[in-house]
Amino acid sequence: MVQIGFLGGTGIEARGLALRFAAAGCKIILGSRTLERARHAAETYNVILGKEMIEGLSNTEMCRAAEIVFLTVPFALAIEAIDNCRSELDARHVLVDVTVPLMFSAGHAEYQKQDAESNSENIAQHLPENVPLVAAFKTIPTAVLADLSAPLDCDVFVCGDSESAKQKVMAAISMIPSLRPLDAGPLRMARTLERMTVLAAELNHRYKKKGARFRMIGI
Amino acid sequence: MVQIGFLGGTGIEARGLALRFAAAGCKIILGSRTLERARHAAETYNVILGKEMIEGLSNTEMCRAAEIVFLTVPFALAIEAIDNCRSELDARHVLVDVTVPLMFSAGHAEYQKQDAESNSENIAQHLPENVPLVAAFKTIPTAVLADLSAPLDCDVFVCGDSESAKQKVMAAISMIPSLRPLDAGPLRMARTLERMTVLAAELNHRYKKKGARFRMIGI
Repeated sequence: MVQIGFLGGTGIEARGLALRFAAAGCKIILGSRTLERARHAAETYNVILGKEMIEGLSNTEMCRAAEIVFLTVPFALAIEAIDNCRSELDARHVLVDVTVPLMFSAGHAEYQKQDAESNSENIAQHLPENVPLVAAFKTIPTAVLADLSAPLDCDVFVCGDSESAKQKVMAAISMIPSLRPLDAGPLRMARTLERMTVLAAELNHRYKKKGARFRMIGI
Repeated sequence: MVQIGFLGGTGIEARGLALRFAAAGCKIILGSRTLERARHAAETYNVILGKEMIEGLSNTEMCRAAEIVFLTVPFALAIEAIDNCRSELDARHVLVDVTVPLMFSAGHAEYQKQDAESNSENIAQHLPENVPLVAAFKTIPTAVLADLSAPLDCDVFVCGDSESAKQKVMAAISMIPSLRPLDAGPLRMARTLERMTVLAAELNHRYKKKGARFRMIGI
């Protein structure tokens, strides 16, 4: 089975994804800049799971062991996180960008325009050329992912310019129950996906909810 | 009951909306630059409905009679259509923009960036100041709307800067069965809604469907 790692694996962005993949039976490696923090998070999550599915390593060690690497840092730290692991990332990997460039002000989310038209395209410009990038999970709230008792019951939009990388990520996602991966086309579709999170945040704010997410009808 | 009119009421954009509102019991006025075309469309739709719910008038006569006016012209003609009715539009009206600035090339939709950040905001800049603008139905395929035998089974995102205008439009929408109006916030949310149609078009293309539309989970 494919080995799934998390670059920046101790934060809230990674928590729900690591738990969901581990609960589905995947072996998970949490990466962190400090080994101790990675090990601590792994232990905590294994207690929640009731089984030893998650290991903690340094980010660079995680990159050596994992094939699919989720980039789970706050959006503004994405380039720096990649730079710190640049020598470890190569064509064996698929990097999965889940970042969304939002800033919150009084409950309202504002989209933060990057140099490129989306944060995924921004990241792609800074990656080693042979590392395929896939965007996914941009529209699924971390709080819902992390609550294992809540069925997800929604779609996850997956986009990227490498068809084989996208298929690999979609196959992994399809292991998670009540979550349907949909092929959303080329990487530039991240322009739409990132902005959809602005809509979900606004709906959460107006309807006093926390878990707004999308499901396609007619597909 | 509120009177609903269509500015550019003889095209495919108006067809499904007029039929759905009329089937729900609303009196509808189709506007057109030529009275004859408006009357012909109204007759055709009344035959489909099996009852006389729809009337055809010139665009200017329609504006005099209707309170909620749907702007149902291709996106590139929106400003011209408004200019032609400028003297008839005032604070009695709510204008509802359903346009999406897309161009299709080999089945793929490309977003057409306007002077403003969305076509709705572009239109707002050209409207008489006292006419409130609401954006709605941007993400619902015209083909699905026009097929009265198909349940819609999805959400319609409604945004605008006038709360009272938005509430009026949402109240009208709530008459249509299996369609839930959601308050998506200020008019600038059209930036997201218009781009969501790019995603729906891509999904239709990849999954060989025609009716991709959105439903929120968790709201």
